[in-house]
Amino acid sequence: MKGRVLVNSRAAQHAIILSVQLNSAFWSRYQDLVREVVLPYQYEILNDRVPGVEPSGAIRNFRIAAGIEQGEFTGMVFQDSDVAKWLEAVGHALKSKRDAALEKLADDVIDLVVAAQQPDGYLNTYFTIKEPGKRFTNLMDCHELYCAGHMIEAAVSYYEATGKRKLLDAMCRFADLIADTFGPNEGQIHGYDGHQEIELALVKLYHATGEQRYLDLARYFLDARGTEPNFFLEEWERRGLQSFWWPWMKEPDLAYHQAHKPVREQDVAVGHAVRAMYMYTAMADVARLTGDESLRKACERLWEDVTRRQMYIIGAIGSTHQGEAFTFDYDLPNETAYAETCASVGLIFFAKRMLELSPKAEYADVVERALYNAVIGSMAQDGKHYCYVNPLEVWPRANEENPDRKHVRPTRQAWFGCACCPPNVARLLMSLGDFIYTWREDRRTLYVHLHIGSDVEWELEGARVRVSQESALPWRGETSLRVSAAEGPRRFALAVRIPAWCAGEPVIRVNGRTLSPEEVRVEDGYAVIEREFADGDEVAFHLPLAARFVVSHPELRATNGMAAIERGPLVYCVEEADNGRNLAALSVDLDAPFAEVPCHIEGVDVVALEFEGYRRDDQAFADGSLYRPVSPEAKQEHRVNIRAIPYFLWGNRGLGEMRVWLRSR
Amino acid sequence: MKGRVLVNSRAAQHAIILSVQLNSAFWSRYQDLVREVVLPYQYEILNDRVPGVEPSGAIRNFRIAAGIEQGEFTGMVFQDSDVAKWLEAVGHALKSKRDAALEKLADDVIDLVVAAQQPDGYLNTYFTIKEPGKRFTNLMDCHELYCAGHMIEAAVSYYEATGKRKLLDAMCRFADLIADTFGPNEGQIHGYDGHQEIELALVKLYHATGEQRYLDLARYFLDARGTEPNFFLEEWERRGLQSFWWPWMKEPDLAYHQAHKPVREQDVAVGHAVRAMYMYTAMADVARLTGDESLRKACERLWEDVTRRQMYIIGAIGSTHQGEAFTFDYDLPNETAYAETCASVGLIFFAKRMLELSPKAEYADVVERALYNAVIGSMAQDGKHYCYVNPLEVWPRANEENPDRKHVRPTRQAWFGCACCPPNVARLLMSLGDFIYTWREDRRTLYVHLHIGSDVEWELEGARVRVSQESALPWRGETSLRVSAAEGPRRFALAVRIPAWCAGEPVIRVNGRTLSPEEVRVEDGYAVIEREFADGDEVAFHLPLAARFVVSHPELRATNGMAAIERGPLVYCVEEADNGRNLAALSVDLDAPFAEVPCHIEGVDVVALEFEGYRRDDQAFADGSLYRPVSPEAKQEHRVNIRAIPYFLWGNRGLGEMRVWLRSR
Repeated sequence: MKGRVLVNSRAAQHAIILSVQLNSAFWSRYQDLVREVVLPYQYEILNDRVPGVEPSGAIRNFRIAAGIEQGEFTGMVFQDSDVAKWLEAVGHALKSKRDAALEKLADDVIDLVVAAQQPDGYLNTYFTIKEPGKRFTNLMDCHELYCAGHMIEAAVSYYEATGKRKLLDAMCRFADLIADTFGPNEGQIHGYDGHQEIELALVKLYHATGEQRYLDLARYFLDARGTEPNFFLEEWERRGLQSFWWPWMKEPDLAYHQAHKPVREQDVAVGHAVRAMYMYTAMADVARLTGDESLRKACERLWEDVTRRQMYIIGAIGSTHQGEAFTFDYDLPNETAYAETCASVGLIFFAKRMLELSPKAEYADVVERALYNAVIGSMAQDGKHYCYVNPLEVWPRANEENPDRKHVRPTRQAWFGCACCPPNVARLLMSLGDFIYTWREDRRTLYVHLHIGSDVEWELEGARVRVSQESALPWRGETSLRVSAAEGPRRFALAVRIPAWCAGEPVIRVNGRTLSPEEVRVEDGYAVIEREFADGDEVAFHLPLAARFVVSHPELRATNGMAAIERGPLVYCVEEADNGRNLAALSVDLDAPFAEVPCHIEGVDVVALEFEGYRRDDQAFADGSLYRPVSPEAKQEHRVNIRAIPYFLWGNRGLGEMRVWLRSR
Repeated sequence: MKGRVLVNSRAAQHAIILSVQLNSAFWSRYQDLVREVVLPYQYEILNDRVPGVEPSGAIRNFRIAAGIEQGEFTGMVFQDSDVAKWLEAVGHALKSKRDAALEKLADDVIDLVVAAQQPDGYLNTYFTIKEPGKRFTNLMDCHELYCAGHMIEAAVSYYEATGKRKLLDAMCRFADLIADTFGPNEGQIHGYDGHQEIELALVKLYHATGEQRYLDLARYFLDARGTEPNFFLEEWERRGLQSFWWPWMKEPDLAYHQAHKPVREQDVAVGHAVRAMYMYTAMADVARLTGDESLRKACERLWEDVTRRQMYIIGAIGSTHQGEAFTFDYDLPNETAYAETCASVGLIFFAKRMLELSPKAEYADVVERALYNAVIGSMAQDGKHYCYVNPLEVWPRANEENPDRKHVRPTRQAWFGCACCPPNVARLLMSLGDFIYTWREDRRTLYVHLHIGSDVEWELEGARVRVSQESALPWRGETSLRVSAAEGPRRFALAVRIPAWCAGEPVIRVNGRTLSPEEVRVEDGYAVIEREFADGDEVAFHLPLAARFVVSHPELRATNGMAAIERGPLVYCVEEADNGRNLAALSVDLDAPFAEVPCHIEGVDVVALEFEGYRRDDQAFADGSLYRPVSPEAKQEHRVNIRAIPYFLWGNRGLGEMRVWLRSR
């Protein structure tokens, strides 16, 4: 992390990790896939060179805005952000492994992006090409600052990876223009963007540059949001009561944009789920960096609401496709779930900031849940097919023929008209190292949030200390941490998360000796081992990992009387490929033991689970009747062997039904 | 049924019932309600005189079209049909009880309607006021022949009730214009309406007038539908590829209009459910009247598909609000059901025609199911609040805050912008007598399809015979039929339907003597008692009626592992008012005995049902967790007493949850 400037003590608590390098067989495979397949594939798509995929136009838009090519703007008003997310992912990729060819591609794209920047620093191809003169007139609908935020994130990522300042400097110029344009002073726009994103990006820019004004601007956008008089309502009137998106809209839906009340007064997650996650992420950042207690409390309330009352078991959020939105507490229908990939990525961003605010295992539990299920499940093993909506239940015929379920696609798609999700997954996977550890200088503690094989290096009293983690997750619960302290022993603490899925007390050994429970302090879900660590010291964990049925809170109406299956961090699902059609006719006995069966799906060696269950007979209905009085025949079930596989591998064996929740007896 | 002309022998098999007069406490109450409250209330609404209800404009449109008033057209393109359905219901009401004041109202409305008719016979206020010159240019979207059909039905009903020919003659003139305009000949439009209705109306007009050309026209519309080249596609091109309703429509959805293939080739119910029902009704009419075997077979296939694979247990159809449509076999989601009232009314129309084609108890079973549940459940006991969508499940918060469930209103509404349903219920209830009996001259048999107290009179060998039915349904299974044959004994058969809900063998007595099983011939679900009936002979039935849990076909994914409750023809539901909130946390034991508890809801004495069930505990989730590994605590349920009430009375005791299907253990 070359060139990073440490700007203040609060930030410094977390900023002195020097590097994290993955060495996990499970996750390195994903990073290799992103590096070798996803990034080149997405680059081809951004350049309109993939046959059969709707032209993106994203790179071409920059060429037109730069005056290199003639033509019309193509795609969504936020098409620029696809290029930004790709660049950001490339930055993360280069951090772990320099690659001259990839860097050359990115440098060329950056040249093009900067060429499209206007003389005053403004950058947005839609407004430059299609609506010159209209910049900053429809912030609610048109994603200008959202696109700016993504390009800022790209600039920071690329600068951190390569030390190259071209895009960073360009985006500082744009950020300066935005800081001049927006704010509480006379002559400034007292507004904010309809799609939050710039707030968290400005915090990153602040970290990268040390410029306080970027942090102040992030805070301004949060402070102004949802206050009276409402900016979006005023803007709506100024532009003649017209929505950019929906001609029939009668008035703005402020809650959709989380602009219905000041952010500090928000208790319940509402509206567009991705917007909400990006905003909460920035709120937690700003709360930590400025010591803002009311903002921290709002983050805690919102976290609790999202994760305890509005989150699907796969770590996905968004109960309705209408507005890609939250609905309300405990409303988590399976058939019509939205569960957008980007929202799970955003939830992981939010969780990371909560961990930085205060390390509690529950935050990392959610990171793990979203990561191992919704996020990696959203991408096919070929790296070229994606879910926008992550299904809890697939019934291919219903997903084709019932319009209420058409947004749930029964197979992963090659690309999307609104292509936000695939590059979001790419940037998350390539920056996964950033989510594993935090160092708290004030506690002299290295927090190990995720059991993911990796080497972490940080500075302690002028010396470099390294911890090498190895982990057999998600298949087995063995993790070890080996300390390298070549410059002599150092006293510090390792705080290692005990995952919520542990099926019993973990066994912890230090240099081969098992610790007694009294020797382990557990704080906020972390086992804290504090000692003078010498070079070669090893702390090993055995985390009991067992397949289990999971049930939901009785208020969660949709899954009462049902059970899901988890094994460690993995949620399981049943598929037609293993269990035949009509998975709704299956039921499970919650006491059934599981057999673990090694199998192989799309190049992945997995632990499948088998157990005895039941399937309803249909003989009593052989007369074609739809409803029958109950009778021994009509309720007859026969025993069947049910096989479940990890959710993230669903849909790899042909079109068929899939379910996460099974009826329980 | 004065003035009816018997037109051919097939029609005559059914046409010589002279009158049916209801005397059922249960149903006369509904007819009184319609006569005393619903018709006057709807009249006020049609005249825009109900405060707080969106102005209908329906009468005013006729005044404008007649040149009596100046102004703009108000309401839906099919607004005229609200007036027609009101008039039709008034006709049915006057048949059972002349009422000078009501008749005067109707005569005035008819004067107005006829005044709005154009010199050539054309009648449609939308096209007359708003798009003169555009008549018959957008049949797919604009309901012109649909409105014509409803006014024809009104004319026949009013003529049959009063003998007044003014509207009938006017509608014959319109029908003649239509018959000149549409048909297979050169210069005619080779087309049909986007919303079927005129087909069945023309059959009624044929019965009332004996004019073969009306039957021929009905048949033409059916024959032409869905043939190649497709009329709607041609019309769509002629008018510039523009939808009247949906600006974003790219091409017509032919299946929505059941115009995707010739009607004789249709196997599966698709598209808009009301359109489908009205079309199938006419198909069955024409099949019977013309002896068309391929049409009859199509009706039988479609009947089976609708009632055995696409019908909700309350006798409702339409699985999605998008297109108010069928989806596909066994796709009957509860939360998002459409289950439109008009579609259940249409299903009853279709069933009646199937009974006329060939009397099978299953057709009448469906009439009873739809009538006692969806149809009367759609109207509040005050006659002034209605369901458009009949819920299988109400969760008020979800119905307000989850946009995917907003079409399901958690309370009955005062009126609707699209007000098709309330007058449809009114006309059905006022003509209920028409659905109870058919006389088959060829079999000398009076079929008693419904156990509804009523006096039926028909002509047998020149004499009038009367049967007086008394029935204690829906509460008790006692029905008696007393024959009046003042002109001497007559040999004929009474074929009395044994309902599918009978919980055992019925006991049948003739003049007090119980018949042995050998003395009763059962044909197609009817107990046939053939004898020389003398004046005063009485046949009495005891139909064993017991509350029972009902389960669904395993292919019906949404209700696997669930049970509904039926008692006789009534489906039951559970409500928050009796059982507290979160009905999804309840489960039932399918062996639990029911206690019958008299109670009183909104002026109705009902039999409520109580039984022991279970409710999930939430103590294990007191820590706020949303998901937990299964444990004795997490799956704990405690015993509760559950109370169920008849579905048709749901929502009379304040806003709250309601469910028809309960989880079973």
